[in-house]
Amino acid sequence: MLVVMKAQATPEQIQAVCEYIEKLGFRAHPLPGAQRTAIGITGNKGEVDRGNLEELSGVAEVIRVSKAYKLASRDVKEEDTVIRFPGTDATIGGRDLAVIAGPCSIENRDQAFAIAEQVAAAGAQFFRGGAFKPRTSPYTFQGLGLEALRIMAEIRERYGLRIVTEALDNESLDLVAEWADVIQIGARNMQNFSLLKRTGRFRKPVLLKRGLSATLEEFLMSAEYIMSEGNYEVILCERGVRTFADHTRYTLDLSVVPAIQRLSHLPILVDPSHGTGKRDSVLPMARAAVAAGADGILVEVHNQPDKALSDGPQSIYPDQFVRLMDELQQIAPVVARHLPRGIHVTAAAG
Amino acid sequence: MLVVMKAQATPEQIQAVCEYIEKLGFRAHPLPGAQRTAIGITGNKGEVDRGNLEELSGVAEVIRVSKAYKLASRDVKEEDTVIRFPGTDATIGGRDLAVIAGPCSIENRDQAFAIAEQVAAAGAQFFRGGAFKPRTSPYTFQGLGLEALRIMAEIRERYGLRIVTEALDNESLDLVAEWADVIQIGARNMQNFSLLKRTGRFRKPVLLKRGLSATLEEFLMSAEYIMSEGNYEVILCERGVRTFADHTRYTLDLSVVPAIQRLSHLPILVDPSHGTGKRDSVLPMARAAVAAGADGILVEVHNQPDKALSDGPQSIYPDQFVRLMDELQQIAPVVARHLPRGIHVTAAAG
Amino acid sequence: MLVVMKAQATPEQIQAVCEYIEKLGFRAHPLPGAQRTAIGITGNKGEVDRGNLEELSGVAEVIRVSKAYKLASRDVKEEDTVIRFPGTDATIGGRDLAVIAGPCSIENRDQAFAIAEQVAAAGAQFFRGGAFKPRTSPYTFQGLGLEALRIMAEIRERYGLRIVTEALDNESLDLVAEWADVIQIGARNMQNFSLLKRTGRFRKPVLLKRGLSATLEEFLMSAEYIMSEGNYEVILCERGVRTFADHTRYTLDLSVVPAIQRLSHLPILVDPSHGTGKRDSVLPMARAAVAAGADGILVEVHNQPDKALSDGPQSIYPDQFVRLMDELQQIAPVVARHLPRGIHVTAAAG
Amino acid sequence: MLVVMKAQATPEQIQAVCEYIEKLGFRAHPLPGAQRTAIGITGNKGEVDRGNLEELSGVAEVIRVSKAYKLASRDVKEEDTVIRFPGTDATIGGRDLAVIAGPCSIENRDQAFAIAEQVAAAGAQFFRGGAFKPRTSPYTFQGLGLEALRIMAEIRERYGLRIVTEALDNESLDLVAEWADVIQIGARNMQNFSLLKRTGRFRKPVLLKRGLSATLEEFLMSAEYIMSEGNYEVILCERGVRTFADHTRYTLDLSVVPAIQRLSHLPILVDPSHGTGKRDSVLPMARAAVAAGADGILVEVHNQPDKALSDGPQSIYPDQFVRLMDELQQIAPVVARHLPRGIHVTAAAG
Repeated sequence: MLVVMKAQATPEQIQAVCEYIEKLGFRAHPLPGAQRTAIGITGNKGEVDRGNLEELSGVAEVIRVSKAYKLASRDVKEEDTVIRFPGTDATIGGRDLAVIAGPCSIENRDQAFAIAEQVAAAGAQFFRGGAFKPRTSPYTFQGLGLEALRIMAEIRERYGLRIVTEALDNESLDLVAEWADVIQIGARNMQNFSLLKRTGRFRKPVLLKRGLSATLEEFLMSAEYIMSEGNYEVILCERGVRTFADHTRYTLDLSVVPAIQRLSHLPILVDPSHGTGKRDSVLPMARAAVAAGADGILVEVHNQPDKALSDGPQSIYPDQFVRLMDELQQIAPVVARHLPRGIHVTAAAG
Repeated sequence: MLVVMKAQATPEQIQAVCEYIEKLGFRAHPLPGAQRTAIGITGNKGEVDRGNLEELSGVAEVIRVSKAYKLASRDVKEEDTVIRFPGTDATIGGRDLAVIAGPCSIENRDQAFAIAEQVAAAGAQFFRGGAFKPRTSPYTFQGLGLEALRIMAEIRERYGLRIVTEALDNESLDLVAEWADVIQIGARNMQNFSLLKRTGRFRKPVLLKRGLSATLEEFLMSAEYIMSEGNYEVILCERGVRTFADHTRYTLDLSVVPAIQRLSHLPILVDPSHGTGKRDSVLPMARAAVAAGADGILVEVHNQPDKALSDGPQSIYPDQFVRLMDELQQIAPVVARHLPRGIHVTAAAG
Repeated sequence: MLVVMKAQATPEQIQAVCEYIEKLGFRAHPLPGAQRTAIGITGNKGEVDRGNLEELSGVAEVIRVSKAYKLASRDVKEEDTVIRFPGTDATIGGRDLAVIAGPCSIENRDQAFAIAEQVAAAGAQFFRGGAFKPRTSPYTFQGLGLEALRIMAEIRERYGLRIVTEALDNESLDLVAEWADVIQIGARNMQNFSLLKRTGRFRKPVLLKRGLSATLEEFLMSAEYIMSEGNYEVILCERGVRTFADHTRYTLDLSVVPAIQRLSHLPILVDPSHGTGKRDSVLPMARAAVAAGADGILVEVHNQPDKALSDGPQSIYPDQFVRLMDELQQIAPVVARHLPRGIHVTAAAG
Repeated sequence: MLVVMKAQATPEQIQAVCEYIEKLGFRAHPLPGAQRTAIGITGNKGEVDRGNLEELSGVAEVIRVSKAYKLASRDVKEEDTVIRFPGTDATIGGRDLAVIAGPCSIENRDQAFAIAEQVAAAGAQFFRGGAFKPRTSPYTFQGLGLEALRIMAEIRERYGLRIVTEALDNESLDLVAEWADVIQIGARNMQNFSLLKRTGRFRKPVLLKRGLSATLEEFLMSAEYIMSEGNYEVILCERGVRTFADHTRYTLDLSVVPAIQRLSHLPILVDPSHGTGKRDSVLPMARAAVAAGADGILVEVHNQPDKALSDGPQSIYPDQFVRLMDELQQIAPVVARHLPRGIHVTAAAG
């Protein structure tokens, strides 16, 4: 159910409608749009009575939303969601292409700084690095944890890069929410509903990766879990799905980009590193992602891929990253985007 | 790495080897076999020095295990793992076929008791019912929680059925471990490594469902996560994988049964209810699972499927369950199994 | 469109309705049932005028069939199709389980006879052997062709086994139709519509294998292609589909058996040899197929699998086949089937 | 096996080596390279004796090729294959992006000409249109056959467009080879080995579409089938594979583009129309294909998609095609390609 307020509705009227909804035992989600505010109603106690809602002052109309996801849907919010990072000009979802780059895992301070310096210089606005690693085997490197978060906080200070890192569970979520700028939820946790809900209680952007066998609807439903708790800043990320094809590690499903953009107002990024698992395919697929209209890319860069503690074979070299940024800058205008090259480095230097 | 003890090794010698291993910063897992005990060594700090180990008293040989999973592998433990439930004659993994039946969700006391009575009378030894439900949508019924656990505890008392129910997160895990006989980890959490590790710290059997797109190796690696924490009573469960086929909800991959039995000593069950999502297919696929050699089945039974709060279309009627038990009893001897019909009801009545 | 004739309609009336339909430029397919005859109307020239048809004598009613497949549908023919082989008591689709066994390829006369003798003695009623092989590589053994057909004809004479072999193209189709008892169309040709149509012009049973990525509807539509040309004796065969799972060569989708039996009157067999690609999985999955309700199995048996020119690793040994027949005989009654053990050998000897 | 000739080997020496190979019962495939000629040896009669070959005059070395495909492999021919069309400057596989556009089916002369005029004006060098249609149902429009071929021949005359159309079987293959410039083999026939071989006997470029569940190796092996008969002008085409994802009709696997370019010298195109089945996704995925490095695209354009006899929902409008060409022209330089806009129209007008 969606309450669309009149264009001239006052903040007090919006507030009153929200309170009315919450008094009925539902949850109200005010969603400001360009022209007017809509209020999403969620909750699993059946249907709200539409009649009374329509008579509250400031209400234009009450609409039933039939899709399983509501808050994530364009039906509820037509304009693209643009996520801003206070104190910087970095955005995700707007005209600027978002580039998130860095190593799979933070291995030590030197490695992290070396890579951060290079990706910042090449124009990335975001730095990614694993602190808590979801590893298939219990016997492999599981990440440096808090130490990695501290290193990345220094990197933010030094290079002006916003930090993106994965939370695996309650404990790491609290830490990531405290130290990072974007909380990443990995593909294997895309349907860890308990973690999604808890993530929704923070007021920090969330990068949600598509599960290995998630349909588009399931993907958006997982975003909805986060949003239903009040955190509307969800960034979706395609990272390859599991198919019979064996020439890449996963099959990068780029067609999900236009499909999501039709249905949802949330930004959608693409991770060509996990999506292919092969260094040689990262540049072609990163270019393809941007050409398909993605809001940005997430790419693994390592200064010594052969010595990486995880995902070495899919990490590109810093000079490949420089070349990629150059290529993306040429493709961006075709899809009405812009790649704000080098701006952040300057900002950080200031 | 695996330390194989001599047949005549004493408990003290075994203990001494374990302590030696732990002192080196690794973890020791004594695995008693029919003839002698093997001690698995796990940990992610590199390789143990083999030479010193071989010289400890009671040690027969030290073997490098090359597979990614060790404790779950037949290389480490040749005999089938049989899980016993103290105070009953119910087992999983031995000659008796394990039958776990009940509704998708516990909806209320009357519904649960009505179904429990019928499945017990028909010969099920285990009762399943959801207390905490992992739902794709945040707006649908999420389970009765603790109330459901209490109802199931009464059912155990009354009908002698062992209780199997799913844990979703830390909080529900603690409750499920306290109230139930088997902790179920659902398909969507198969790679929630944090939850797996935590589950491994309990001393209670764990039923681990295969993820929707998990390979055989990933499935066994997830069992290994639990076992690496010291909980060796892991029961695997095939519940259908995601494919292009659209005549069933998932594609039940029965060939995983013989494949797992070759590689692992752990029991493997089949869930034809989730695996097909269609009532008409449950009986055929349950028969097929037993004929393929599965150690048992997990089947949803509901007295009023049309009114079920979840998964109604795939729940069979109690009279279908009676017919199924009759059919399984005829197939069981072909695969050297036995279906201990009605025994538990008598036991409970006594 | 389907014309249902009255129970007491005469052959002349049926004939007259067929002629009327054909005069309109459509094709009439009389389908005799237990009670009365239905006449399917096919053709791609739009809709027949229903009014005039209803007024022809002997017509009970005219029904629109909405499914994409008609002749293959149970809507059009409710009773199971049972395929008979004149001069023998072998059937496919009835109470008797059909067992088709033999080597992947006919390699020479001795090999073929050795295997045929053993499978006949164990109770198979049908012998399979490749004469024309669809090989992924142009550089591997492509079959003995006509020579293989001649060897199999001798085997029919000697052991009373009916012959099943694959046709690849127009040339081999003409030969197979001449020499064999059942024309097999392989998975890779399931949507070779030109070959399907041509196969439909023969009056010989066709064993149609499911394509590697065919949905249930596409599978039935391919049967419909054959039937639309007037050949109604189509036997379906599940042989595994392509998925991400890598523990077997393909994923055997047994749930297609009950799904097809709900929608279609055609018999459905299962090929556990191609469906798994692994000898160890053949027996478990063959038992599972019969327990799931399949009308029979197609299984590769080789006396020297290690020396087989094709598919050795998935061929079972003759003694495994004997054991399998024994197991199937025990499972068959559970699904109201019968395994006519050894009967044909006697018949052939007579 | 591959015989590499010396750089200065004479045509007579090359000829002599080929004759020697053929005398042994194998097939010789001379493959001229930039520096020197290699001669591929194929046949399924075992191994050639290497020693004698090495002693023939002009031979530099004899190399064993271990991959299952040889002639399609870069091991055998390092330079990209560029396919030329005599009498035009159209190429496939070189610096110019190949654009093949037109309706799914040729429905009538007016429709075909209207579309051809528009795609030619917008810069397409090739016209595609179905004459023989592989339809899932036997009851739907199957194409105009020879009449369609005649219409396309007129279109070639009038607009200077090269003609690409599908052959389904022996009969249509002979006609297509006679009337068209490129013989298309559809996805459902990718493993119709008999048709592949027959296609290999023509000396006309072949556009081979990837099967719905073909691995990269199987795709190249099917190209090898054609090449092993002496037709080396094979153009590969990705058109989507079958997965669980349901937001598009198939999942377009763009990562196959760089993967094929590493392994094979053959050109690889992408068909975003069949690959997505949705008009809204065609432009994004066409841009992505070119950005990923594809040698060109195959796209369905229809002037009245709502009235199309087949595949209407995935056909783009002519004005969308104009926009696409404009976008591709901007992306092409990033991947060192060129889109020869409008050239052919002028040529045709001249």
